Amino acid sequence: MIYRLYYWPGIQGRGEFVRLALEEAGAAYVDVGRDEAEGGLEAVQALLDAPGAVHPPFAPPVLVNGKLVVAQVAAILQYLGPRLGLVACDANAALWTHQLQLTIADVVAEAHDTHHPLDVGDWYCNQKEEAVRRARVFREKRMPRYLGWFESVLERNPTGAAHLVGARLSYADLSLFQLVEGLRYAFPNAMDALGRDIPKVLELAGRIGERRNMAAYLASPRRQPFNEDGIFRHYPELDA
Amino acid sequence: MIYRLYYWPGIQGRGEFVRLALEEAGAAYVDVGRDEAEGGLEAVQALLDAPGAVHPPFAPPVLVNGKLVVAQVAAILQYLGPRLGLVACDANAALWTHQLQLTIADVVAEAHDTHHPLDVGDWYCNQKEEAVRRARVFREKRMPRYLGWFESVLERNPTGAAHLVGARLSYADLSLFQLVEGLRYAFPNAMDALGRDIPKVLELAGRIGERRNMAAYLASPRRQPFNEDGIFRHYPELDA
Repeated sequence: MIYRLYYWPGIQGRGEFVRLALEEAGAAYVDVGRDEAEGGLEAVQALLDAPGAVHPPFAPPVLVNGKLVVAQVAAILQYLGPRLGLVACDANAALWTHQLQLTIADVVAEAHDTHHPLDVGDWYCNQKEEAVRRARVFREKRMPRYLGWFESVLERNPTGAAHLVGARLSYADLSLFQLVEGLRYAFPNAMDALGRDIPKVLELAGRIGERRNMAAYLASPRRQPFNEDGIFRHYPELDA
Repeated sequence: MIYRLYYWPGIQGRGEFVRLALEEAGAAYVDVGRDEAEGGLEAVQALLDAPGAVHPPFAPPVLVNGKLVVAQVAAILQYLGPRLGLVACDANAALWTHQLQLTIADVVAEAHDTHHPLDVGDWYCNQKEEAVRRARVFREKRMPRYLGWFESVLERNPTGAAHLVGARLSYADLSLFQLVEGLRYAFPNAMDALGRDIPKVLELAGRIGERRNMAAYLASPRRQPFNEDGIFRHYPELDA
């Protein structure tokens, strides 16, 4: 079965959390939005607009596997987890993995809102002053709180700090890597300052990036660079 | 087994989505934060601060069932769903239910940010001007988009518009009811204006409120009123 991922081309965005799971597992997938032969952006739009869809996606990313159509990053990863070997079999461990993923989704939404605090549909330059204020709160209060929580999760893992859940890789580890990479891109100064408080988080992120499939993906053209159209944007005034 | 819900007393907040599921199912539960005999607010804080917790919650609501501790509304409801008979057995239907719940969580976060667009830890009066701007975007663009999507989900349900998923009640129906109630409290003018575009959503919400267990709960002192400390706040200037 070849998975089909529908996401906007040109940005990592929320689609990247799904890509990382597919890439780490070596799964066969088509990144429809980036593949002109598959229809590219128009195919993404057509999926969203399909009048006959019984389970219409609210927004990308959307994963299609045969007849199954699922949106929402956390739901997609929960679906893919057992199929890709990226979550524990134990139900409580799987629920904990999902809870971690939902909290990553919350940070990601707040990271996005640093550059769009008032209107997601308007330009950054029209809400820049407010963005400066929201970004300061995010850097000074929210980033330490969220990342400090992930540090404590690693500290408390009875099987050690190599992974968020138990002693094996899960999709939550991959997403935490992406969160760290994104925050480093958007807020390099804030992340530098925070570094000594979250050594286990940074160690985990470093190890994830060195895994064979991850390293190959990150070095490939399939990994799009961060940019100022995505979730994690580097505007120096928001990291001052 | 008696479920234990840990949530801040004094507000419906995100805890209400869990309460509605427990109440509809007639489940035995303790609302710890509101029950002084159970420790009240201090017990909620103690759970959050417990140094030995292996699965530390990031924030309430938290559900405890024996040794299981789970936070994040969508994860709690996913856990409770099969236990309370509030989700279909079919895996794809359950995933769709969860996806709907995750989208409700997204609207709820945006509804919260209408009154706290810049700093969740600061007073409303210190971000009121920005709140007016963000609330206008929410009323004019986001509410129609989200509620219109739920309307289309009901329209496309092959088994009819009585429920979001299939022909039976699910926790997503209960949460949609709470979303509608909250938006009506916070933005009565906007909801009035939007009403004719979302008849099926409003019908569903009306029927949910009339269910025997729901009606009994809503009329009981266990249902706290909406207020200006919760997620859905009525500030007339945000609904002008």
